[in-house]
Amino acid sequence: MNAIVRVEAQSRPLGRLLKPQSIAIIGASNRIPGIGGYCTANVKRAFSGPIYPVNPRESEIQGLKAYASIADLPRDIDLAIVVVPADGVAPVLEACAAQGVGGVVIITSGFAEVGGPGVGLQAQVAEILARTGLRAIGPNCIGFMNLTDGVMANFVLDPTDPLPGGGPVALVSQSGGLGGYMVRKALTAGLNLGWFVSTGNEVDASVSAILRELVEREDVRVLLGAFEALRDPELFIDTALRAQALDKPFIVLKAGRSEEAAIAAQAHTGSMVGSAEAFDAVCRQYGIFSVASLEEMLDLGVIFQGGRRAKGRRVGIITGSGGAGVILADACMLEGLKAPALPAADQAMLLELMPKPFMGSVANPVDVTAQALGTPGTFEAVLTKVPATDAVDMIAPVIIGNPLYPDMYIRSHSSTEKPVAFVSTLLPTTLLNVGVPAYTDPRRAAHALAAMADYSLATKRTQRPKMLPADPARTAAARAILAAPHGSDTLMEVDSKALLALYGAPVTREVMCRSADEAVAAATTIGGKVALKVMSYALPHKSDVGGVRLGLSGDDDVRAGYAGLLADVARHAPDAKIEGVLVQEMAPARLEILCGMTRDPVFGPIVAVGLGGVMVEILGQAALLPAPFEAADVKAALEGLLGGRLLSSSRGLQPSELDAIARLAVALGQAALELPEIAEIDVNPVRVANGVALAADALIVVSGAAQ
Amino acid sequence: MNAIVRVEAQSRPLGRLLKPQSIAIIGASNRIPGIGGYCTANVKRAFSGPIYPVNPRESEIQGLKAYASIADLPRDIDLAIVVVPADGVAPVLEACAAQGVGGVVIITSGFAEVGGPGVGLQAQVAEILARTGLRAIGPNCIGFMNLTDGVMANFVLDPTDPLPGGGPVALVSQSGGLGGYMVRKALTAGLNLGWFVSTGNEVDASVSAILRELVEREDVRVLLGAFEALRDPELFIDTALRAQALDKPFIVLKAGRSEEAAIAAQAHTGSMVGSAEAFDAVCRQYGIFSVASLEEMLDLGVIFQGGRRAKGRRVGIITGSGGAGVILADACMLEGLKAPALPAADQAMLLELMPKPFMGSVANPVDVTAQALGTPGTFEAVLTKVPATDAVDMIAPVIIGNPLYPDMYIRSHSSTEKPVAFVSTLLPTTLLNVGVPAYTDPRRAAHALAAMADYSLATKRTQRPKMLPADPARTAAARAILAAPHGSDTLMEVDSKALLALYGAPVTREVMCRSADEAVAAATTIGGKVALKVMSYALPHKSDVGGVRLGLSGDDDVRAGYAGLLADVARHAPDAKIEGVLVQEMAPARLEILCGMTRDPVFGPIVAVGLGGVMVEILGQAALLPAPFEAADVKAALEGLLGGRLLSSSRGLQPSELDAIARLAVALGQAALELPEIAEIDVNPVRVANGVALAADALIVVSGAAQ
Repeated sequence: MNAIVRVEAQSRPLGRLLKPQSIAIIGASNRIPGIGGYCTANVKRAFSGPIYPVNPRESEIQGLKAYASIADLPRDIDLAIVVVPADGVAPVLEACAAQGVGGVVIITSGFAEVGGPGVGLQAQVAEILARTGLRAIGPNCIGFMNLTDGVMANFVLDPTDPLPGGGPVALVSQSGGLGGYMVRKALTAGLNLGWFVSTGNEVDASVSAILRELVEREDVRVLLGAFEALRDPELFIDTALRAQALDKPFIVLKAGRSEEAAIAAQAHTGSMVGSAEAFDAVCRQYGIFSVASLEEMLDLGVIFQGGRRAKGRRVGIITGSGGAGVILADACMLEGLKAPALPAADQAMLLELMPKPFMGSVANPVDVTAQALGTPGTFEAVLTKVPATDAVDMIAPVIIGNPLYPDMYIRSHSSTEKPVAFVSTLLPTTLLNVGVPAYTDPRRAAHALAAMADYSLATKRTQRPKMLPADPARTAAARAILAAPHGSDTLMEVDSKALLALYGAPVTREVMCRSADEAVAAATTIGGKVALKVMSYALPHKSDVGGVRLGLSGDDDVRAGYAGLLADVARHAPDAKIEGVLVQEMAPARLEILCGMTRDPVFGPIVAVGLGGVMVEILGQAALLPAPFEAADVKAALEGLLGGRLLSSSRGLQPSELDAIARLAVALGQAALELPEIAEIDVNPVRVANGVALAADALIVVSGAAQ
Repeated sequence: MNAIVRVEAQSRPLGRLLKPQSIAIIGASNRIPGIGGYCTANVKRAFSGPIYPVNPRESEIQGLKAYASIADLPRDIDLAIVVVPADGVAPVLEACAAQGVGGVVIITSGFAEVGGPGVGLQAQVAEILARTGLRAIGPNCIGFMNLTDGVMANFVLDPTDPLPGGGPVALVSQSGGLGGYMVRKALTAGLNLGWFVSTGNEVDASVSAILRELVEREDVRVLLGAFEALRDPELFIDTALRAQALDKPFIVLKAGRSEEAAIAAQAHTGSMVGSAEAFDAVCRQYGIFSVASLEEMLDLGVIFQGGRRAKGRRVGIITGSGGAGVILADACMLEGLKAPALPAADQAMLLELMPKPFMGSVANPVDVTAQALGTPGTFEAVLTKVPATDAVDMIAPVIIGNPLYPDMYIRSHSSTEKPVAFVSTLLPTTLLNVGVPAYTDPRRAAHALAAMADYSLATKRTQRPKMLPADPARTAAARAILAAPHGSDTLMEVDSKALLALYGAPVTREVMCRSADEAVAAATTIGGKVALKVMSYALPHKSDVGGVRLGLSGDDDVRAGYAGLLADVARHAPDAKIEGVLVQEMAPARLEILCGMTRDPVFGPIVAVGLGGVMVEILGQAALLPAPFEAADVKAALEGLLGGRLLSSSRGLQPSELDAIARLAVALGQAALELPEIAEIDVNPVRVANGVALAADALIVVSGAAQ
């Protein structure tokens, strides 16, 4: 959606609209089923403040006095719900603004989403909003639900559906259909939604803007967001920082991942930065859960909504079936949790409770077998004693069939402050209805507990990553390099590295030479074996034209190499203007790493770090870092790559090598933020050995627009 | 579980026990709840043949005439269900055998699973079975259910639970608890189980043995297996081959996948538990689905039970919510399916059906919007027209909320022979009850459809892979190498490669030399640059002692290298006995590959192929191939590694390189099968460049037992 159909910045807050004291319904109706009728009935059944239906053809709507026009309404109504046809929306908005309305929810569809004339209609709406300062949700949405304040400004639910009981979870969804799907699933899966907002075409309020508003509300303790296109990424990150500061889990589902993945696949070797991947990188960096399915979103919401936190990753499993216990223990391990055997004293205490002779296990899983399942008193004792031990941080009891004694499970859940996830063959409505987390699959329960542990144990990021201190001299020096005359949009290696070195990147020692004598002198200064590389704006791929000599040592070798190199280049690329020959230290490599920067259309500069050389293509993976980021973020991101083996394996990166790579990545990020004219950076290979990592080649591409 | 508590080979078939004409219940009871009472009631409510309760203290059990002892029963009863205490089981089995009983289901627990005296009791049972030929399921199981023949020989269900309707799916589970969990879930999730067998301690019949029996039955069309420890791996593979030949999908869930769980399972079942990776490799090679969770097993069972097959990977999505459609399309892509736009003619045809003006989409997803949802006639037309187009192979319609018109969905499902997976916010019981597949999460529906496409389009493997033709001369030559005197259990490189070359492995050209003159002559014969490597049984790690020289060319270079190498080795390892110096061609490497062989305790020789060098450790992944396998299996396995990029990327393996690697892997597999005294083979690196792949180093470890 381009700027013409969106309001770019609105200064008035959304709060008045979201938490209204008075509501008007423009296009209210007696017709049920029907959108106007549904919205009116939903508002009426939940809202305790004044309600003003507007409909020129009726004197009364669903028992409420109807108004013929907006001009007839009292001034300064907080919220107007707009359900008139698309071509009638603009006049309605003008009238609302004139009447001092705080904000509107435009349910009506037929705008930018249908293309053609709809785009013009939406542009008209955007213009009115920008001019009048009226805030808006929609158009093409299904409204919103704020159960804390009794606002059912939506047709998500049929008025005959029971009114949801509310709760600490807020769901904001761009798509109405998807949101409605989630709301209905939430009602059966025990997710206690207090808020649901559908943002539709987002002519004004985006998912990010709504979440930024809701994160501050005390009644909201878990944030769920769902969207295809993320708008207002800065507000999105602000929301994440506030969510971390306020200890509110933030879970998002991005639809349309695969399409972007396909675009990413077209990107050239080494830049594996696609939007879905960049999005996930942002989520990781800011402590947001990016989930892969609707059920995963529900599952995480259910475990987090009670507000409990875990002190560790140890799960106590209680089961009446050995097999179910094993599969649950297995699921826990696969999710990175632990199910350690209980200490001997705890086992002895549990054994005391059991029938004799006892055929089960009191280790962990605690398998009470059918013996104890048959005696509820014993089983309840186990259900409260296991959570009480110091040996476990979270509890996962198994229920087979319909819970025969639901109160016992509920009491067990109340007896502890540790997170509990029941695993049940059937969806145990009695438990879910009172907020006891339960899952119908061991893997899903384990996944939810793992998310709980990850979240509880993570250091919260409450501020944006620190950048390098601003340094006008550095920026000026970098700009001078970028401005140096060159015949292509690609900087030469020597200039690319000089620029990156300004930002602290570790690069090979090297000297630009214009004669064999200079080269010999440079080689002596550098010491050891050297490489020679032809420097020409016309020759970014130096080795293809014989423009590289490796492993030279001694004056004769260097002199001969210099002459040979120039001869080869003259033969292969007779027209290329040669700027000089770079004499460079030879850096040994146990490992070759790649470090690159591309710009994501949503999140800006993204730095990729991964294995270099042949591996780039074959591995097809890199750690992605949205700038700005700090050295610690680079380490964390690399830990997420290849199961952390790049850091943990004995031939992986040593600490000082990792530090150097982190400095390099930070340099790329910083340069990209300061110098928007840089389109792309490719440092490949970074040669790593003996505690050192050095950029051995580098390439900076300047964007056409900036030249 | 060791041989003493298990019957190793039984000749009489299991069929008589599984499909009995008459049933005795030893330990039948009037007590409900109670295991004996439940078993009796379950048998009684489903079985139409004669039933013989045995209980010395009652004259009548649940309305049936009771018998005081087994000796009082008629001869040749097909099935006896045993529910007496553990120490009474052995006499019961003796009596059963004496009375000509066909087979027993031993429900009783307290055998090997509790250790101590239980192990002895189980050994006693094994001995009786071996001596008498009586077949047995259990002990420590919950019985079995064969609804085709009305046999409810179990206490899985409470007799007051409704009797399941039966169906084409058979579930065989080692764990009773897990099986019971699955049976209950199946009942609510629409999985139509005709068979459930729990095998417990498997003193005789294992999961594999039961599946091997059931795969041949006409009433069984989908096989599900669940176990911690897989026994009878040959029967397991036989079952897979028959399942492929008979076009019956075969889905397994292995519990105890994690290392910790494997240890627990080993303790718990007393059986060697092979690695989860080897298990998955066997499944891939034989067309078995190895699933990760209970719900995945259910989901696949539900899509396969109808017997439909897909002709391609194109999914037609029908939705009333744009957002739900996008997320479903997304899920399809992520699962490797396609959702292509419908051809123009189909779109025009659909558009004709729609209300005007139409705000949705007829491309794919076909989004009928709330407009058409409100007019069931239109929606039903879409639900039948989309499946009828040639442009899609499978259908995924979305249902929001309770299906208002379930018959419409059911008719749509019946209107096509293509696989259909409904996606629904709520579990649509009305659909599931009549066998219409439905899922509560888009990702799960897409995963099921992807499994359907994978299965439908795969070439079925109906025979074991072909091995190399037997060649006694080759085997003798290999044995001669293995028998050559050596001071360690590790063969020298030169011998390891000579052995592998007998089986067709591509190895570097090389000559074993005992003098500098010989080395010079060998280098001349080989041509180009050569490597020198010290050969000593005491020095498997040659480079650690200075025992390697690389890139030598010319007589002087080789002579100097030879002397220098021996001097270095003499200094670093003065006591090592030197057998000679290997002069070897230098093989260039664009890529380094590793090829190794280890023995899995369950499945025997497993060959691993992956990236070599530093990457082995950092990547932590390899393609695994259970021997025997063919060259095509190596290619297929490598396609499954790193998203296939090792084969597809431009710097990945070229066809002739892949062929050479496949020959090498096949050689390792064949050698391992023919020569059980080989414990381990490690070929690292295989150097790959310019269309050639050569084993540049190799190491064969001989097992201590064989020496």
